[in-house]
Amino acid sequence: MDVGIFIGSESDLEIIKDALELLKKFEASFALEVTSAHRSPERTLKLIRAFEDQGAEVFIAVAGKAAHLAGVVASHTVRPVIGVPIESGGLGGLDALLSTVQMPKGIPVATMGTGKTGASNAALLAVEILGLKKGAYRKKLEEYRKQMAGQVEADSEKVQKNL
Amino acid sequence: MDVGIFIGSESDLEIIKDALELLKKFEASFALEVTSAHRSPERTLKLIRAFEDQGAEVFIAVAGKAAHLAGVVASHTVRPVIGVPIESGGLGGLDALLSTVQMPKGIPVATMGTGKTGASNAALLAVEILGLKKGAYRKKLEEYRKQMAGQVEADSEKVQKNL
Amino acid sequence: MDVGIFIGSESDLEIIKDALELLKKFEASFALEVTSAHRSPERTLKLIRAFEDQGAEVFIAVAGKAAHLAGVVASHTVRPVIGVPIESGGLGGLDALLSTVQMPKGIPVATMGTGKTGASNAALLAVEILGLKKGAYRKKLEEYRKQMAGQVEADSEKVQKNL
Amino acid sequence: MDVGIFIGSESDLEIIKDALELLKKFEASFALEVTSAHRSPERTLKLIRAFEDQGAEVFIAVAGKAAHLAGVVASHTVRPVIGVPIESGGLGGLDALLSTVQMPKGIPVATMGTGKTGASNAALLAVEILGLKKGAYRKKLEEYRKQMAGQVEADSEKVQKNL
Amino acid sequence: MDVGIFIGSESDLEIIKDALELLKKFEASFALEVTSAHRSPERTLKLIRAFEDQGAEVFIAVAGKAAHLAGVVASHTVRPVIGVPIESGGLGGLDALLSTVQMPKGIPVATMGTGKTGASNAALLAVEILGLKKGAYRKKLEEYRKQMAGQVEADSEKVQKNL
Amino acid sequence: MDVGIFIGSESDLEIIKDALELLKKFEASFALEVTSAHRSPERTLKLIRAFEDQGAEVFIAVAGKAAHLAGVVASHTVRPVIGVPIESGGLGGLDALLSTVQMPKGIPVATMGTGKTGASNAALLAVEILGLKKGAYRKKLEEYRKQMAGQVEADSEKVQKNL
Amino acid sequence: MDVGIFIGSESDLEIIKDALELLKKFEASFALEVTSAHRSPERTLKLIRAFEDQGAEVFIAVAGKAAHLAGVVASHTVRPVIGVPIESGGLGGLDALLSTVQMPKGIPVATMGTGKTGASNAALLAVEILGLKKGAYRKKLEEYRKQMAGQVEADSEKVQKNL
Amino acid sequence: MDVGIFIGSESDLEIIKDALELLKKFEASFALEVTSAHRSPERTLKLIRAFEDQGAEVFIAVAGKAAHLAGVVASHTVRPVIGVPIESGGLGGLDALLSTVQMPKGIPVATMGTGKTGASNAALLAVEILGLKKGAYRKKLEEYRKQMAGQVEADSEKVQKNL
Repeated sequence: MDVGIFIGSESDLEIIKDALELLKKFEASFALEVTSAHRSPERTLKLIRAFEDQGAEVFIAVAGKAAHLAGVVASHTVRPVIGVPIESGGLGGLDALLSTVQMPKGIPVATMGTGKTGASNAALLAVEILGLKKGAYRKKLEEYRKQMAGQVEADSEKVQKNL
Repeated sequence: MDVGIFIGSESDLEIIKDALELLKKFEASFALEVTSAHRSPERTLKLIRAFEDQGAEVFIAVAGKAAHLAGVVASHTVRPVIGVPIESGGLGGLDALLSTVQMPKGIPVATMGTGKTGASNAALLAVEILGLKKGAYRKKLEEYRKQMAGQVEADSEKVQKNL
Repeated sequence: MDVGIFIGSESDLEIIKDALELLKKFEASFALEVTSAHRSPERTLKLIRAFEDQGAEVFIAVAGKAAHLAGVVASHTVRPVIGVPIESGGLGGLDALLSTVQMPKGIPVATMGTGKTGASNAALLAVEILGLKKGAYRKKLEEYRKQMAGQVEADSEKVQKNL
Repeated sequence: MDVGIFIGSESDLEIIKDALELLKKFEASFALEVTSAHRSPERTLKLIRAFEDQGAEVFIAVAGKAAHLAGVVASHTVRPVIGVPIESGGLGGLDALLSTVQMPKGIPVATMGTGKTGASNAALLAVEILGLKKGAYRKKLEEYRKQMAGQVEADSEKVQKNL
Repeated sequence: MDVGIFIGSESDLEIIKDALELLKKFEASFALEVTSAHRSPERTLKLIRAFEDQGAEVFIAVAGKAAHLAGVVASHTVRPVIGVPIESGGLGGLDALLSTVQMPKGIPVATMGTGKTGASNAALLAVEILGLKKGAYRKKLEEYRKQMAGQVEADSEKVQKNL
Repeated sequence: MDVGIFIGSESDLEIIKDALELLKKFEASFALEVTSAHRSPERTLKLIRAFEDQGAEVFIAVAGKAAHLAGVVASHTVRPVIGVPIESGGLGGLDALLSTVQMPKGIPVATMGTGKTGASNAALLAVEILGLKKGAYRKKLEEYRKQMAGQVEADSEKVQKNL
Repeated sequence: MDVGIFIGSESDLEIIKDALELLKKFEASFALEVTSAHRSPERTLKLIRAFEDQGAEVFIAVAGKAAHLAGVVASHTVRPVIGVPIESGGLGGLDALLSTVQMPKGIPVATMGTGKTGASNAALLAVEILGLKKGAYRKKLEEYRKQMAGQVEADSEKVQKNL
Repeated sequence: MDVGIFIGSESDLEIIKDALELLKKFEASFALEVTSAHRSPERTLKLIRAFEDQGAEVFIAVAGKAAHLAGVVASHTVRPVIGVPIESGGLGGLDALLSTVQMPKGIPVATMGTGKTGASNAALLAVEILGLKKGAYRKKLEEYRKQMAGQVEADSEKVQKNL
């Protein structure tokens, strides 16, 4: 298994759907568990160990509000941890963003932007990191970049017609 | 021991000084340890258990930035946990405030205002909570309130003279 | 009566519904009144006294915008006061959060997160505080924590199936 | 007495100094008391009544953090209440501003900008309001406006020389 | 005419509807014009003069985004100007609030909270200010306060039944 | 061609529609391309050169979130670049606004307000800038201003009828 | 005269000093006046007309807090207006930024970043705009860009030595 | 070379000093260049290629205000890019944080907290990422974690003595 993913609640699956598709597209294997830094702290610790034992090279943690999940994972592993802050409630994700990114000295969390966009980017960053071990990922990523650039060009042509 | 206090780093002692004086004034016993949710997670868990064993009825946790300390304590005890967000860095404590207060459903943290004022209020809230067990605290608190009101009046007289 | 609850307007009942269910679940008795720090200040003061006379050990105050209700209650009692800021209007509850939490030195308000989540946590914190008097609450809270952790595990299994 | 002024603490005198000079300049009589919405609530209510009895037509309240002082005064009088939020602590006065301005329907507070500038403007607004009763204030205010405009012109000439 | 009202665009009428009802209820006469600080600056200046000539004792200005309308009015009159910031767009009214309230030294704007609530309070503050001239307004305001307090009590009873 | 326009994605066309109508109304010729500072960086550089070769005197760049598009254009041309921050996601456009406006010393971006309003103003600013070369634009802009002022007056009359 | 500059107060000269040096370096002629949107509104209008009569092709307006100066200028001219928000007081310039940038549809202000950096960029944008009329400016700007890039390279070498 | 580091200006060296010490401590080789996304865009692209050719497996980019440096690097490489937002000016780094973290779908930037703390964590995350290739890094990181935990304990003892 390449990537260990934690989501803070069942409802976060929606946020991470596109990210999982991206991991599949890049043939990066992953496991996903719902766990909460606060409601199931022991479970979280056990799963971190279990994921490490299964060979997880990178972790992704998705959480909202006072989003501590990524920080908790990061404090129990020296493998890279990617945090995705969810946009929920009236503060629009500013709470989750600051809770994820402003980590104290010593324990980094690689923080993504808020919401679905951030989750997709977490998958891509995970693949970029895996690229250190398997050069094939880098080639695939370069192709993906070309596809994106091509898509932008195609979108532009479509837009020209609607002007 | 009545109150178990955690501060996230040595430098936070300055923030909590007045609060400790208040606890002494109210004759509430306390123990204080430096521990970090992220840099010393095992130590934090051990200390929570140790403080509970020593009879701590209330916890106070003081931390800055992505302030997870109070949340971690709250996830490992069912005794009241009071969180004090520190004002540090360019965001002025907004990061610590949101990281402390926006807890997920199920695990409350009684959040105080930012900085020294919040720390002093944490001590007073701890005494108010201890008041459920020992009525004597309530009487002392009422006297303290009267002193504060008296001080306001004295301040007003002083100000009048400087007009 | 264990818990005295104030909501700032009729419409806040929706916010506090789950919290009331939690109090019932824990068999904590409560009374609830609509009152406004600003529109009915005398009534608010009378109700604080009345609730204290009925034995309220903890107060919960729910309000939005320049949310002064919890602060007013706190300034008239030395029993613990829990404040719940409502997410209303364009500022998403940031106004209510800051108005509730940034109390001056001397008068603490135990501030919860914004909205329904915060209200539910207010109920749980109230039970945690009542636990200082009645140990039975602590046992129930520990069971509730286990249920939550179990629920997280069940959610995780459900999610696995939808991957 | 024309204007009743409350400041939340002794240290706020510095903030209000220029405002008092302005009131003197416009020959508007005033009384000033230190009082706290939270630390001396009874005193605050008594002083509102006392100030009304002395004929105060307008109130000014200066406070910081969860600045409830203006709101409390406004809830106990139907005379205009002007609120001045203080810039203190890491949040730079955003807390005091929102706590003062976001009043619920029914109880207005005429909110000024933060800090000394806001305090001076509170004095001027008080004089503008007093102008409804005494036309002489309006003439003085118009002269003051002309002086300000003249000062701007003088400043501009000084700046020209330094270019 | 007692109160001169400016709204920045036709669509702001919705925001001010309740406020107009309040002015009618208090029998304060008013005139209302749509005008823009930026799109019709000359018109704005003419209307300020016209409203003053018609005897307007207080001005209310309602605007959104970089809400300069109240400030422009205030810079051309020495009568009290009340500003109402509108909640529009992604910033939720924070832009309009800061643009209205943070006036420079010399030119105060009595700023209300954001949106409809703020607009209604603008009407009430206008009546409070008019109360300096006509004592009858103060009596009506006191009755209105009693009605509000009575309504709170009635709401509380209704809520009790739904528990 | 007078104005070179870049939008960060197909969906931004909606935001810029009114702006394009304004450019047509003023008979300012323009070309529009979808391109992304990040997904198609080479394409962006090529298009800047191509637009310059076609004679673009002004650039408009529309983007959301960490909106770098205007900044990238500005770093590759010495012609005026106008940036329009989009309101997307939970942060309501504050992210795009700060990413666009807070440019380092040396490379200015003429930043507009957020969303559709900002986009329309980008078109008008472009015409104002083109006015340095062709005086006819200035006359048209003055007429447009008169129309706007007239519209305000017409709106006011309509509102009067609905009071 | 090429550029008409307004600063809101004498103390803003410090903010604009580097910008004036840049204008001199590019040999763009300018005039500067202190004037306030609020304290000297008539003067501001007169100066706008006077500057236009003297041939000002671009305006720069520097102001803080509820920074209306740029907006007022923009509402009285169809020539490009550049706004520079000052960082003053506890809100760090967020108030001035939003007051300057969030202009209503119809009246654009080309907003720069906050403080001295923004002021310098205002000078450069003014020169870029003047470049539409005089091609020589564009060449000078391209040289300036090369100098900046060279400076970056020189700085890098210096830093290498200090590693 | 393991880590390629870009800082936006000479003065950022101070921010990154501790981070460089950390990289040396972990014996991760690095190269550092000053380059600006906006003032030296061509240089930035060349250096990205040069660093890749020299074998850089991870990039770190440090920048303030509208911090585009990390985003520009990320758009030109498929190797992991770590962004460090600097706290500069009145907005305290909120501008740099949002400009760095809110990247569009497709181009991730692993964002750290603001300022020196974030820079140190960037070094540690780089080492964690390098750990995918060289297991020795992971062991060193685990030892470093133990040292940190030990330091926390030592700090706690020191604090005990000062109580």
